Amino acid sequence: MTQPEALDWSSEGCTIERAAEVVGDRWSLVILREVMSGIRRFDQMTVRTSIPRQVLTDRLERLVAQGILRREPYREPGQRQRNEYRLTDKGIDLYPVLVALQQWGDRYLADEVGPPTEFEHRGCGERVDMVLRCGAGHDVRSNREVVGRLGPGARPRTA
Amino acid sequence: MTQPEALDWSSEGCTIERAAEVVGDRWSLVILREVMSGIRRFDQMTVRTSIPRQVLTDRLERLVAQGILRREPYREPGQRQRNEYRLTDKGIDLYPVLVALQQWGDRYLADEVGPPTEFEHRGCGERVDMVLRCGAGHDVRSNREVVGRLGPGARPRTA
Repeated sequence: MTQPEALDWSSEGCTIERAAEVVGDRWSLVILREVMSGIRRFDQMTVRTSIPRQVLTDRLERLVAQGILRREPYREPGQRQRNEYRLTDKGIDLYPVLVALQQWGDRYLADEVGPPTEFEHRGCGERVDMVLRCGAGHDVRSNREVVGRLGPGARPRTA
Repeated sequence: MTQPEALDWSSEGCTIERAAEVVGDRWSLVILREVMSGIRRFDQMTVRTSIPRQVLTDRLERLVAQGILRREPYREPGQRQRNEYRLTDKGIDLYPVLVALQQWGDRYLADEVGPPTEFEHRGCGERVDMVLRCGAGHDVRSNREVVGRLGPGARPRTA
């Protein structure tokens, strides 16, 4: 048997894994969908989702700590000041991750009527989807044309 | 206060949420990275990752049950038959999700030396990244140009 080349190399520092540690969590992704849909307040999020309150508190805390969401104070008449949650630049840059998830979900998991939430190109109004493109400027026509390889930060694996 | 429009609508059937339920899990994403890197066997996965064996067993089972991985038997000389794990078409279509995660991770979480794993355009050899494109054929230049909206399957929320 030929061993796969990757086996000789460490996966330390993998940016997919690091990103997965931060947002590879069902509820964090649901919260991001909510904020991206204009739902920014704790109570609103409990109305639209089935996230248990304690989990919601915890995940919002984590997303703020990671610099993905930021708190913005607001006050409704006659009530105490509360915070709403807004995307930071780092959070805004997660749109492509949610678009990618949606595109896959639309293909394999959608109801016939289609998804209840999608993404649009602001101003233009058309739906946003993603395409893969390589460094030579080619659009990747089929996902079969993609394959993992060692990156610039690959280090030999030590036993 | 004006309520956000989305609050009147249900998130039921959301394909982002359904996709997140399936692959919105740190270890499932790490396993997919491994398989996409040519690491297809249980023991090899334990060498390259820090996934506890029981969790690895469980996640592989789930990914097979979801139709994302399939088992392919192999037998090394003098040993019993074992299975390796390969991507199905449904699994291959997750490349864009991992590319999107990597692109974000590379931007915010990478070591200076760069990532140890990346994706290439087969044959061409160039690195693959993703771009967002709208239905009018525009490349989305900035993630600030993207915004969530109601999709075709949106249904009014019932209290």
